[in-house]
Formats: sequence, C-alpha cells, structure tokens
Amino acid sequence: MVDIHKGFEEHSVAEFFKKNRQMLGYSGKIRSLTTIVHEFCTNSLDACEEAGIPPDVFIQVDKLGQEHYKVTVEDNGPGIPKKLVGKAFGKMLAGTKFQRFQQARGQQGIGGAGCVMFGQITTGKPTKVITSTGNGTIYECRLTIDIKANEAKMGDEKEYTGQMRGTRVETELKDVLYQKSDQNPDEYLRRTALANPHAKITYINPDNLTTVYDRAIDAVPPMPRGTQPHPKGVTVDDLLSMVSVTNARTVKSFLSTEFSRMSSAKAEEISKQVSFDMNKRPKDMNWEEAEQIVSAIKKMNFIAPPTDVLIPINEQHLEKALENILQPEFKSVLTRPAAVYSGGVPFIVEVALAYGGKAGLPLNGNPEQPQNRMEIMRFANRVPLLFDAGGCSLTKAVQTIEWKRYGLQEDLPLTVIVNFTSIHVPYTGAGKQAVVDNEDIIKEIRLALMDAGRKLGTYVSGRRRKAESEARLKELMRYVDPVAEALHGLTDTAITKLKKELKELIEAKYSAGEIEEGNGEEEEEVEELEENGNSE
Amino acid sequence: MVDIHKGFEEHSVAEFFKKNRQMLGYSGKIRSLTTIVHEFCTNSLDACEEAGIPPDVFIQVDKLGQEHYKVTVEDNGPGIPKKLVGKAFGKMLAGTKFQRFQQARGQQGIGGAGCVMFGQITTGKPTKVITSTGNGTIYECRLTIDIKANEAKMGDEKEYTGQMRGTRVETELKDVLYQKSDQNPDEYLRRTALANPHAKITYINPDNLTTVYDRAIDAVPPMPRGTQPHPKGVTVDDLLSMVSVTNARTVKSFLSTEFSRMSSAKAEEISKQVSFDMNKRPKDMNWEEAEQIVSAIKKMNFIAPPTDVLIPINEQHLEKALENILQPEFKSVLTRPAAVYSGGVPFIVEVALAYGGKAGLPLNGNPEQPQNRMEIMRFANRVPLLFDAGGCSLTKAVQTIEWKRYGLQEDLPLTVIVNFTSIHVPYTGAGKQAVVDNEDIIKEIRLALMDAGRKLGTYVSGRRRKAESEARLKELMRYVDPVAEALHGLTDTAITKLKKELKELIEAKYSAGEIEEGNGEEEEEVEELEENGNSE
Repeated sequence: MVDIHKGFEEHSVAEFFKKNRQMLGYSGKIRSLTTIVHEFCTNSLDACEEAGIPPDVFIQVDKLGQEHYKVTVEDNGPGIPKKLVGKAFGKMLAGTKFQRFQQARGQQGIGGAGCVMFGQITTGKPTKVITSTGNGTIYECRLTIDIKANEAKMGDEKEYTGQMRGTRVETELKDVLYQKSDQNPDEYLRRTALANPHAKITYINPDNLTTVYDRAIDAVPPMPRGTQPHPKGVTVDDLLSMVSVTNARTVKSFLSTEFSRMSSAKAEEISKQVSFDMNKRPKDMNWEEAEQIVSAIKKMNFIAPPTDVLIPINEQHLEKALENILQPEFKSVLTRPAAVYSGGVPFIVEVALAYGGKAGLPLNGNPEQPQNRMEIMRFANRVPLLFDAGGCSLTKAVQTIEWKRYGLQEDLPLTVIVNFTSIHVPYTGAGKQAVVDNEDIIKEIRLALMDAGRKLGTYVSGRRRKAESEARLKELMRYVDPVAEALHGLTDTAITKLKKELKELIEAKYSAGEIEEGNGEEEEEVEELEENGNSE
Repeated sequence: MVDIHKGFEEHSVAEFFKKNRQMLGYSGKIRSLTTIVHEFCTNSLDACEEAGIPPDVFIQVDKLGQEHYKVTVEDNGPGIPKKLVGKAFGKMLAGTKFQRFQQARGQQGIGGAGCVMFGQITTGKPTKVITSTGNGTIYECRLTIDIKANEAKMGDEKEYTGQMRGTRVETELKDVLYQKSDQNPDEYLRRTALANPHAKITYINPDNLTTVYDRAIDAVPPMPRGTQPHPKGVTVDDLLSMVSVTNARTVKSFLSTEFSRMSSAKAEEISKQVSFDMNKRPKDMNWEEAEQIVSAIKKMNFIAPPTDVLIPINEQHLEKALENILQPEFKSVLTRPAAVYSGGVPFIVEVALAYGGKAGLPLNGNPEQPQNRMEIMRFANRVPLLFDAGGCSLTKAVQTIEWKRYGLQEDLPLTVIVNFTSIHVPYTGAGKQAVVDNEDIIKEIRLALMDAGRKLGTYVSGRRRKAESEARLKELMRYVDPVAEALHGLTDTAITKLKKELKELIEAKYSAGEIEEGNGEEEEEVEELEENGNSE
C-alpha cells in the first residue's frame, strides 16, 4: 500500500491567501485594482478617525504599462511607529481590530498585507512605506512578505528628520486593469466621499484627471466607543473564551463586569437559575455550567445594547454629502433608530433616496447602460460595496420594495443609498463585499426605504400632478378668447373684461386643485391620507 | 493624541476561521450540518482512493435534541498513523494536498479541522477519532483544537489491539438542523453516490431510515497521477517560488525537469530569447529574468498538458450510476476531451442528461416545488455542490443553453449533471460550493450540453412524433369499417378482405413515417439532418 501520508505539511495563512487570493477580492483584473485602493483607503480613514484627525487622503493610480499600474495612497493620520510597520503591512492576521467590539471599517488584519502580497506576486516588487508619527523623524522602507513564514521582510530602511505626520504607501501591480466601469476606483472613491462627508479625498486617475472631493462638514465624527458584548448575543463558547482571560474573581463578578447591560441584580437573577455556585472562579466553570448561564439569559430580558457605540453618517451630514456630490432635485434621507441582530449585535440602518440632478447617472456614463435607472449604492460602516451585489442582503432589501406602490417607476433618475453601521458587519466572505442574509437587517432596511420611498413618491406624484394640472390649464386657456368673443356678442360686456374674468375663474379652479411644490404641510397631509387609506 | 496602536495582536488561522466560519460553509443551520457530512466524506473517499481501496463509507446522523445532532463517518481506508491524527483533524492548513498538482477532492487542509472546531464551539465536546492502519493496533482519542495556537489537543488517548483498517470520526454539533430539503445530507449522499459509482455508501438518517448505495462498478478508478505545472500556466512568482526549492543546477535544467511538456529543445529555445545566461544557478535568477522566461513562453507553443492526470467518472460508469440511482427512461452521457483553463490547468467536463424515471424528482418531494422540473446537479472532482448555485459558472453554463432549440421544454422530468474534473478547482470561496466564472470552463460545458441536449431532443421529439402518429393511426382506423362497407356495396368484394387491405394500407403508411423508439441508426440520421438544417 502506498504511504498516502508522505508529504504531510503545514502552511502559513499567507500561503493560504496567496493560493486563495480571490477570497480577499483579488479576482479579475478590474476588481483587483479597486481592491487595492479600497484596502489602503480603509486603513487611512480608520487611522485618521481613531486619532481624531479630519482625514485628508490622497490617492493616485498611475498606468505604467499594459495591465501594469501603481497605486499610491497618502494620509494625514497618526503614522505608524517604526516597530509596527512590518506587522501592519507584512503579516496577515495581525492588527488591533480583530477581537474588539467596536465599529470600524477594517476587521481582520489582512487588508494591508494582502495589498503588499498582491503587488509582490504580480511584479516582484516591494511596497514602499513612508510614515511618521509627527515627531520629526520619518521612517521609510520597502516591504515584502515572506509568504512561507507570514513575516515581513524589510529592505532599504531609512530614517531621516523631516516634518510629516501620516503614512504613504506605494504599490506596483500587474494583471490589473483600469476601465470605465461602475466598479473602478473612480466610482469607489466617489461613493467613499458620499459616505464620508468629513473626509477630503484627492484622486488622480490613470487618465491624469484630478478630482477633489472637499469636506462637506468640518467635524470629525465622534469616535465610536468600544463596547462589551451584550448578554443576548453570547454563546457558550464565547463565555468560555472570555473566562480564560478574565481578571474577575468569581463567575458572578465576571458576568456583571464584562457584559454590557448586565447589572449585579441581573447576575444575581442568573445565579438563582443555575445549579452551581456562581461564586466559583471563572476559570473553573465548565461547558455545562456555561450552558446553564446562556439558557438563563435566553429567558431573561435585558436593556437593548447601548447605541452610542454606533456612529452612523447622520441625516444632516448625508444630506450635505448628497448636495455636494449628486446635487439632486429632491432627497429623502433617513437614519433609523438602532436595532439588534443575532440577539445582541447592535446596528443602525441609514437610507437616502436622491432624485434628479446627478442621481442615477453612472459616473462613467457607460453607453450600454440606460441613463435613467435605479442605482443602488451599498455601504457597510461607510465603506462602499461595489461587488457581489447579487448575494448581499442590502441589495435584496432594496429589491423587495414595491416601488410602484409609491408611484415610483423603474426608469426614474434615482440613487438609492443604504449604509449599514455595526460593531460587526456579517460579511459573506473575506472579500467583504456582501452582507449575509439576515431577517433583522433586511427588515430595518425595508422599513427605512418604505418611509423614504413614501416621501419621494409624494414629491414625484405632486410633481406629476402639477405638470398635468398645468397642461390642463394651458388647454383651457386656449378657449378663453373664442368663448369671450361669443359671450361678448350675446351680452355686450366688454371683451377685455370677459377675458379677464374667464382667466381668473380658470386659474382659481386650477390653483386649488394643484399641489404646490415644496409645500410641506400638504405633503404631510397627502402622506397621512395615504397611510389612512392603507390601513383601511 | 490617543495611542491607536495599543493592543496590536497576532492571531492564528484557527481564530480567523472561528470568527469567519461562514467562509468554511458554516452559515445557516441546514448548511452547517451538510458541511460536516461533506467534509468527513470527502476525506474518507480521498483516503480510500489514494490507497487504492474500493471505498465503503458509513455515515450516520443522529438527532440528540433540539438543533443537536451527532455525525459519525467511518471508512475502510488506510487509517491515519497515530502521530498524524492531531495534524489531520486538529490543525488548520496542515495536510498533504496543499501544493500538489494533483486531482483530489480536498485541497486546503482545513475541512476536517473545521468540523472539529464547529463541534467544539457549539457543544464544547471533542471529536472522537478511532483509527487503525490495519497493523493490529487501534488508536483512539478525543480531540479538540487549541484555537489560539492552531494546535490539536488530545484527550482520553488509548491504544489497544484489534482488527480494523480505516478511520471513524464522531462529532456532536449544535445550532444545526436536519430538514426535508434539497440541501440536506440525504441529497448530498445521493449525489455523492451518483458521481462515485465505485463507492459503497451506507447512510442512516436522523429519521433512522437506512439507505444503501451499492457499488455500480467494482474497480477503483485509477489514482490520478501527480503532474508538474504546464509552462503556459506559470507566473513569474510561481517560477521564483519553484527556484527557491529546486535541486536543479542551472535555470535551463530547472525548466526542462520541473515542467510538464518542457523538452530540452524547448528550454534551449527559451534560452535564445532571454538576455541572460540560463546556465546560471536557479536561485540566482531575479524577477526581471524570470519575467523574460514567462514572456518567451507566452510566444511559444507547447503540447497541451497531459490528460491522464485527470480521472473523470467516465461515460460507462456514469451511465451505470444513473441506472442504479435514477432509473431514467433515457439518458445521454458525455465526457469531453480534456481542455485547459488559465493557460495551463487541464480539466475535463462530463455531462449527463437523465430523462424520466426518477430524474427531476427531488429526493424529498418538497411540496412547494413542482415535480417535473429541470434539476441541476453540479459536481467538482465528484463532490456534489449543493450551495451557492447562483454564483457558479456550472449553473451559468446550463442556464445559457437554449433548451427549446432541442425541443426540450422547461417542465420535463430532467436531471442535468455536470462534473468538473481538474487538478485545481477554482472555487470562489473556502466553502468550496461554486466555481469561478471562466470562459474556457463555460465553453466546454456548453459544448457538452449542446451535444447531449441534441440527443435527448431527438429522443423526446421522436417520442412525441410517435405518439402523434399513433393518434392519427387510431383516427384513420375508425374509418376502416364504414369505408369497407361502402366499397363492398360498390365492388362486391368480401367485406373482411376489404377491411384487412385497408388496415394494411394505413399501417404501412404510418409505420414508414414513424421513428422507432431505440432505433439508433434513425436517430443519427435525424440528428445529421438537423445539423445540416442548422448550417444552412
């Protein structure tokens, strides 16, 4: 018999993702280029915000040859201490965000190292990193990943004095392609600007066209607080992982100090429902005991998780961003109250419907696509999701809305924006482009869209009725002259007087039946009527 | 300024997949259960075949409580040496298959460890492993993964004498669900039996129903040879990875010994197109030099990769499996010649159309689904793909066929089988349920389906014509009696003779116009005609 176990080997996570790079978003030439821009921008925006700095991010994509590009991203963030540069860009699954209960764009500690790896395996060249924390010393190096070891290899290291604060990365790539497309870096950055009105984004594309998205608002959004897990979302395995690192001296104090919304009274209540003494050391708790705690929690009520740990874009800021970038004729923006999925993970849904102006117009005017169409822009924690739309519950929620019910046809110049904000975005894959199918999430998005859709529908139908009304008025006015002449012959009243009275009569009638544009009270009335009508 | 770099940590690949378990197929209660059965079965079948043993696999799924099950899989394979048990089931990215150029079901070295992890994080319980290489000693242990370290932890280890050869695993799971569904273990194993006619599969489902899929053929398929990479599929990075471990003394000998279809003459031809001396040591070759080699290869022709490294199911075996499991009224089975995707990766497409019998009938008779429908069964290296059908190029290829062109309606009782065989299956994710969108692959599947579709169409339309013909015959026969009576009055010929002659006349005419069922020659004729007709 052959020895089938010959050649049994162990592999690093970097080898795994080199072989399975499509899982990180490196599938297809167009997508790979956008993925690099996305990963570096995400890192820059997160770093700036964590340090409370209004982001000012510069992105350049240069064409160097056929399917050969260079991506440069520079930010004004806090910079990276020299000793962490290797881990930040040259080691997968290293980072600060992996285990936190905190809203952030990045989650896995793979993105930056993935860019370095992709550059290196397509061009053989290292990524150049220049960074400074603003202490007068600038650190520069060229960095590759030792794939077998999942470790950074630094070359050409330099340190010199100079005034700089932030990080600049330059990566060369091959087997990528820049094309006019709704999935290219141009569109990615336009949407990034939409969802991040506090960021200034300067972008030079491969055609050497410079676009500056200026800040629409000046304040940096408050930094989301880190939070503790909510009891309702905890599994037995989570509990046991947590007790293995806790400093609490008893199970009871562990529960009341390491969970959100778990008062001593609640912990006491749990202790009465379990068959063991919760004054024992947390580390001594076994699976069955932890299971008892989880089933006790299932039967109890807890205050919903704190919502100040989530920082949505917010309605006013999103409105400003829309004005800045899409200049719509009408917009309906809505931030829902926070909700919870999977029992204990808080999230907030924001939607915006932008109508007219540049809404519904793809940036790159693809001649194959109709100009008036419903364009869906998906965001998760302000990050644009450009790929895998079909498998995403954000798309699904938009598609299940009966837009016709609100008088909205499919060929309207409409942009539908959905931003999903959470401390943990449940992506379907490491490529982070689609949110898993989840009832709670879909329900919240639908509620928001129905509300916004109603408002837009009222506007659009008001606009249509006004246009119809004006057309009828014009039609009737054509009869004023012949009727006035006929009446003049019958009554001997002055023809000018007759004409004037007839006109006034018609105008009075039609202005009463017409809905004034921008008349908020009437809009609300119509909306109320519609709602009453629906409830009958 | 806050120190945003506090808490910088490194994480193991096991931690990553624990957090992102949906990437391994653990999303949803129904899918998670099928994933466990799939991973363990895949390991068993691969192990048996590699050792040349006709697989005899026993699978049991027990219901232990609400959303609480136990999965047991036992095979008659070669067993696992004691010292490798921990790595095989308790360490991710460890295995024999990661870097090979060889056709196999498993590829990553994650599957088995993923099952152990899922069991452990949902129930807190270890996986029980019993294994023996047939040397008279049986090894038994209970195994968990130390998630932080990505290392196996063994407990209750025992060794005892006994006669056994093979491996048995038992894993308890919670948060999973067995349901009547086209995606449950019943259906998974039915399809596994279809694509593996050399395997005996015995299955006891949670309802305690035992199904035995007997071998349809006795021979174990030949073990696919390992192969070397084909020059046309190699990237610069691949070249440099290969030179770092080669024993060859010159670049030239490296090329001619470590690639398939690379003769010394071909290596010589390359050496004339590059600007450096190919007699240098392989390790001294730099990126630019490797790039020269790759571009020289692009301009040259090479014999296609060897195809004996691929072992498809094969037409006769697939036919037997279909008879065994679907008992169709008609079947059209086709194995295409080997083709190549991405320049150098060989693959073979097989399709089967099964019509009538149990074809098109879902195993679990879901009342919400119509009984007559086109059922698509996707396989990659004989592994059934039950999920993510929408994003899979196998589905896409089937859906782009204009079935109506072959006279096939959508409501036929039809099962469409597509098996994709390759040394590397380009899955879209680690969950391994969908094949990436690839032109070469889609083209091959389409060609196969069109050919098989034509044959089935001929059969179905022949069947329809025969039915129509019979109806017309019956209709005409109704006139025999009155016409015979009328003729009798005119000619005085005996009425029985007249009836007999009239009947013979009608029958002769209609049997000439009719296509006999199962008459292969006539079928071919019709097919030829159809093809000529199409080319006009």
